[in-house]
Amino acid sequence: MMQSYWWEREDLCYRDGKLYFCGQDAGALAEASDTPLYLYSARRIKENLQRLHRALTANEIGHTIYYAMKANRFAPLLTYLKTLDLCGIDACSPAEIRLALSCGFRQEQISYTATSMSDQDADALAKWPGVLINCDSISAIRKIGKRNPGRAIGLRINPSQGVGYQNLSVLQYSGAKTTKFGIYREQFAEALEVARACRLDVHRIHFHTGCGYLDEQLPQLADIFKAATWFTSQIAELRQINLGGGLGVPHTSKDALLNVEAWAALVHAHFPGQQIAIEPGDYIVKDAGILLLEVASVETKQDTLFVGVNGGFNLAVEPAFYQRPKQAVLCIQPADDRTVNTTIAGNINEALDIWNEGVQFPVCGEGERLAFITAGGYASSMSSNHCLRGSFSENLLF
Amino acid sequence: MMQSYWWEREDLCYRDGKLYFCGQDAGALAEASDTPLYLYSARRIKENLQRLHRALTANEIGHTIYYAMKANRFAPLLTYLKTLDLCGIDACSPAEIRLALSCGFRQEQISYTATSMSDQDADALAKWPGVLINCDSISAIRKIGKRNPGRAIGLRINPSQGVGYQNLSVLQYSGAKTTKFGIYREQFAEALEVARACRLDVHRIHFHTGCGYLDEQLPQLADIFKAATWFTSQIAELRQINLGGGLGVPHTSKDALLNVEAWAALVHAHFPGQQIAIEPGDYIVKDAGILLLEVASVETKQDTLFVGVNGGFNLAVEPAFYQRPKQAVLCIQPADDRTVNTTIAGNINEALDIWNEGVQFPVCGEGERLAFITAGGYASSMSSNHCLRGSFSENLLF
Repeated sequence: MMQSYWWEREDLCYRDGKLYFCGQDAGALAEASDTPLYLYSARRIKENLQRLHRALTANEIGHTIYYAMKANRFAPLLTYLKTLDLCGIDACSPAEIRLALSCGFRQEQISYTATSMSDQDADALAKWPGVLINCDSISAIRKIGKRNPGRAIGLRINPSQGVGYQNLSVLQYSGAKTTKFGIYREQFAEALEVARACRLDVHRIHFHTGCGYLDEQLPQLADIFKAATWFTSQIAELRQINLGGGLGVPHTSKDALLNVEAWAALVHAHFPGQQIAIEPGDYIVKDAGILLLEVASVETKQDTLFVGVNGGFNLAVEPAFYQRPKQAVLCIQPADDRTVNTTIAGNINEALDIWNEGVQFPVCGEGERLAFITAGGYASSMSSNHCLRGSFSENLLF
Repeated sequence: MMQSYWWEREDLCYRDGKLYFCGQDAGALAEASDTPLYLYSARRIKENLQRLHRALTANEIGHTIYYAMKANRFAPLLTYLKTLDLCGIDACSPAEIRLALSCGFRQEQISYTATSMSDQDADALAKWPGVLINCDSISAIRKIGKRNPGRAIGLRINPSQGVGYQNLSVLQYSGAKTTKFGIYREQFAEALEVARACRLDVHRIHFHTGCGYLDEQLPQLADIFKAATWFTSQIAELRQINLGGGLGVPHTSKDALLNVEAWAALVHAHFPGQQIAIEPGDYIVKDAGILLLEVASVETKQDTLFVGVNGGFNLAVEPAFYQRPKQAVLCIQPADDRTVNTTIAGNINEALDIWNEGVQFPVCGEGERLAFITAGGYASSMSSNHCLRGSFSENLLF
């Protein structure tokens, strides 16, 4: 009996000693590719969306899901989402709106929440009267008001509290420190006054709760919801409360799946009878994507075994820049469960280009292929061509 | 009499109240651009190269400069470097070699030093017999030996010591912790043996010293040089010692210009009579480039004045990810020297998208333009299209 692994599930598991993803032999697909290869599972994307809908519906919450396309803007993936008709789009730049429209979404299915709004941004937004705009600042309210008096808007507020995966500070949208996001309590009365003066109708309240939260952060989430009710109570014509994104997925064997029923119950308890919007990104696509690389070199340097792969941090910046781990998995199942202390390194000439430092990993050889799982979100969409090592392919699998 | 600023120099200064860069009105150029705009000064690039040559020549050091193109691979800039004939190219991927060749460099002018060499990399390198390859590992020696027996190679060694700008750990190529770079003392005898067995002639020793070092790090540099002599003394046919890059430039008013004469004297003291190669990147281009953005929003949130600009960390990742500051400068000279505590933020929906946190900055208004200086290196070359906010233009100025 072979061991099973924490990350295995029906559409991502070993079968006859080979890694299967969405019903296909991942290593064989990688071998047919000249470059690092991203695979996305349409099946998993659909499951993730359906699970959220079920949890919200079970708690009798009227809701809309806007997929945060900054997590992954691969056009086939966006188009597939459109065909599913289970979500709209959360966009954060005019160019993202253009791409969403080009993949078939209607203006009314697009929610726009961004920061540092320029006149150029506002000019673009003015051309899409159907897009739902949430203003992040009083300056943004003025810019929209000047161009579209009479438009209904949302206000992005800042509840001064936030949560994030393992409470990593780089992922904090709001918290003790003042961030650039949203309108704070101190400026809220002025924001409403400016909106009124600009003849804008405030119909929505939007706030970000954090990034990558799991069950252990749910109590903190309750505090954020509580803080947000101060704002929502002041809006006469409140039609929607947008809770932003932030629902997390497990990254390591120590993380458990988020209990979305408990999360939905929390939402219901704080905002009974309200129309709720959410903007998940990672939750929809992160565990629906894997990145396949080839082992380029295996060598012990001093006391450290380095497994060098043919792709670096520029393809997926989370391990290097956000201290978020990426689990590596060999495409051919190891014959036994022996592991050695291993550092998996990329092929970029920078010290921080390390995928995994000092982890237990099976012995492997040059030419073998491995997959980094949880690579469906904030990976290809943030990639750069640093050192001209930025080539990769992407396949959506059905 | 107007005040002068620490960063002012002949080709970057206020004239009649306007920021001039390489003899041109930077704000006017920005206004004519629809996107964030990088400007590069051909004049400054040439000066930086000439200053290095002078310092090395004054110390009677036979030398070659290889420009580290990963710092900035803008093709007009590379082509200009070719016409100057003051340097070759340091490449770290086969694609970088292809680009260098396409800009007119000959194979013999290209030095290649990379990490995690794959078979695909080795196959590409085998087609360019003139390129100078430095092998980073025993695995790489075997790969080259298999394809090009008889080829002369260099060995990249790891002196187990390194220096970096303000000793930031993310910038450490070598040091107490074992890194993926180079061949350590423990494996050096084996490396030489493998090279011999593969009929490769070792003619060069290469090592990286660090990143962004200034005068205060020169004593540490001397220690690294000392450690490297253990390796160089073991090579019978040593024809070149490549000291890598790492020469720094000032990023803030607290940094002083690197004394390159003192640096060159240090090189001469440790490697008298040797042919020296260096691979500066930042030193050649960083202070020869500025990034122009527009002030999109100015707003106080709680206790913090946020100046939001129309470009984010995805255009230039150093402030967000490497904790390296970028000085902001208004394109119209402030009327007086009054400043206020300011946080300059980008337009990306991420908490870490901050250019400058809590710095003294002149009062400015929406629509004004500002420049981030020291933006010529590791900025555009590492940029991503995150949130589809990745558009920018680049101009080489003469």
